[in-house]
Parts: sequence; structure tokens; C-alpha cells
Amino acid sequence: MYEFTPSYLKAVEELHQLPGIGPKSAEKLAASFLKMKQEDFHGFVEALQELREKVKQCSRCYNLAESELCLICSDPERDQTKLCVVEESKDLVAIEKTGAYNGLYHVLQGVLKPIEGIQSNKIRLKELFHRLQHESFQEIILATNFNYEGELTAMYIVKELKNSSLTISRLASGLPMGSDIEFADQLTLKNAFRGREKFSEEMI
Amino acid sequence: MYEFTPSYLKAVEELHQLPGIGPKSAEKLAASFLKMKQEDFHGFVEALQELREKVKQCSRCYNLAESELCLICSDPERDQTKLCVVEESKDLVAIEKTGAYNGLYHVLQGVLKPIEGIQSNKIRLKELFHRLQHESFQEIILATNFNYEGELTAMYIVKELKNSSLTISRLASGLPMGSDIEFADQLTLKNAFRGREKFSEEMI
Repeated sequence: MYEFTPSYLKAVEELHQLPGIGPKSAEKLAASFLKMKQEDFHGFVEALQELREKVKQCSRCYNLAESELCLICSDPERDQTKLCVVEESKDLVAIEKTGAYNGLYHVLQGVLKPIEGIQSNKIRLKELFHRLQHESFQEIILATNFNYEGELTAMYIVKELKNSSLTISRLASGLPMGSDIEFADQLTLKNAFRGREKFSEEMI
Repeated sequence: MYEFTPSYLKAVEELHQLPGIGPKSAEKLAASFLKMKQEDFHGFVEALQELREKVKQCSRCYNLAESELCLICSDPERDQTKLCVVEESKDLVAIEKTGAYNGLYHVLQGVLKPIEGIQSNKIRLKELFHRLQHESFQEIILATNFNYEGELTAMYIVKELKNSSLTISRLASGLPMGSDIEFADQLTLKNAFRGREKFSEEMI
């Protein structure tokens, strides 16, 4: 049976191994790489190579960085007494976009997934506890995701810090803006009640 | 506002320009390139470079080829009197998988799209008519897609060949196997009636 040529099939196979790329998308991508102008292809490969060469981890908070420290860790204007713990750099970027926080971060680079064998030594938890001992934080804000693994990881940190004098907080769980109470799931609605705040003008 | 690092953003932008890759997929892909082992990354880039260097067009039928002629054109066992016209190499591969056809192909590398300015000179139509004059085909089978552009292109070819002695055929349009008549669209059902075949044992 006739098939695509070997180099084409090899490229499709490599593309198919990327996350979220199915066999049909891989073929579409291979076809687009074939049709690309030579300079565009060079630009693409160069950008990937630069990504690999330049983007490292911040040696303090494990955020993405292009020098020893990331831009947040090297900014003396940031509040050095607050530490926000997130799973990934993309969570940090999402929080930064809100402008609601001016402290430091710690990027765990993952989350506890006992079923998949991701234990506390596979993510940056040891490094977190080391920072909590050696830097002068007053508050730690747990901003892991609100799903099973994120909650588990937050719980784990709380338990490890039970004898510490740090203020430990967790982002509020409640109804998202624009949502209807009628359609909220029970757990979210329960959390929204438990975490209800006294009304203030700031809210509107 | 803090953002991802420049090299990271550049890679995301390049990835986002690929077909079917949205901004979130681009971030996911960039993160996966960062986490990839060095040897896997090399393998990936090498496969893309090999794709660009080795995969050319067959000089006769414009199918993908890694030498002057593609494997089908260089196979003397193929029926040299039949020519099947397809839009893209992937259509050719789909037809080859059925084993229903043993003739030659012509890959148009596109389809007429008057609205987007894709006229007859942008696809391999001139080359098709040249082949029909200089090779000894008896039948030409139009296997462009069954949508507006594919039908238009088939029509265009039929019109250009109106004084030729070639047998011109089009793949049958009808109900796909496993489908319900109840849910068929009107045009398909109409085509299925018009193209009805006398029952034979081969069909089952």
C-alpha cells in the first residue's frame, strides 16, 4: 500500500507526540511546514532553540527567568513579607494580570498527584520550606488550583506548617463574576456562604 | 505588568501562527518544549529539517516525493491509461488505502477558490492539461472534494475537456456507509437516487 514518504511520516510522528496534537493536526502541521517560506521556517526553529537556551528557572522562586533571578524576585519594590504559592508560571502570570498582589511567588512546578506517583519530592516543596525558614515572610498565600490535586497540595503545605507562626491563607472560593446562583454547584455555593464578606463599597 | 519572559513569548507567538494552534495551545506547546529532554528536542527539530530538505514534489504528478518521481509514478505496474485528479496528497493516500484504484494520479495542490483569488493558474491545472495531451490516458476520474470549491474545480476541468475523447468520470455521491436515510441531507439523497446502481452481489 502506498503511504506518505518516510521523512513526511517521521515529521508527522514527531508532531503527534506533542501535547494536544492529534494525528490529523500533525498531518496539517507537517503540510504547513512544507509550504512555509524558508525564512519563516528558520524563524520558527530559531525561536524554539532560543526558548530552550535562554529560558531557565529563577534560582529563588522557580518562575521562568532569562537570568539568575526572575524579574519579580529582582524587583526591590515587591513586598518581601508575602509569598504566594502557585503550581505553574502561567498561574503567576494570571495573578499578575489582575494587579491585586505585590508580593513574591513560589512556583511549585507541579502539584501532588499520588495516583501518578508525583510525591512531594517531585515538585518544589522542599525548596518552599527552605525559603520559609531562610527568608522573612509573614504571610503565605496558597494559590494552587481548586481541584483535587490543588487542594491536596494546599492541605499538605498547611499540615507541614502547623507549628509555624506564619499567617497562612488560601484564595477565596466562591461564585465567579457573571454567574447565576441557580446554576452554581453545591460545593462552590457552600464555600461562597462560608466565606461571605461584610459588604463594602469596594465590592462594586 | 509582569509577563512571561521575551524568548518564551516569542516562541509562543511563533507556535500560535501555525494552523489550528490557539493561544492556549501555543503556551502548552512552549512549556512542553521547555521540559523536553535535549535529545528529544534535537530529534524533533531534525525531523522538521529533514521534512523540508527531502520532501519534494513529484515532477510528473505533484504528489509528495523524495526523488524525481513519486513511488506511484515510478511503478510500471500501475495502469497508465487512468488518471485520478485529487486536490492534495492526503486525498491520494486516502484513496490508496482503499485499494480500489490502480491507475495514476494528478495532485492539483489546491482547489479553485475565486473568492480568495485562487484562480486556475494558482493550482496545477495547466500541468494537468499538459499531461492529458502528452500521455496516453483513456479515463480521467475527478476526485476533488464534494463541496463548493471541489465541485467548481471538477466542473472547470469538464468544461475545458469538452472536445476531448477522454472518458471523464466523477466519484459517486451518495449515502455514506452506516448512515440513516432519515438523517441524510436532501442533496446527498437526491444524488444517491440519481446515481442508483443495479443491485449486484459485489455490493454486500
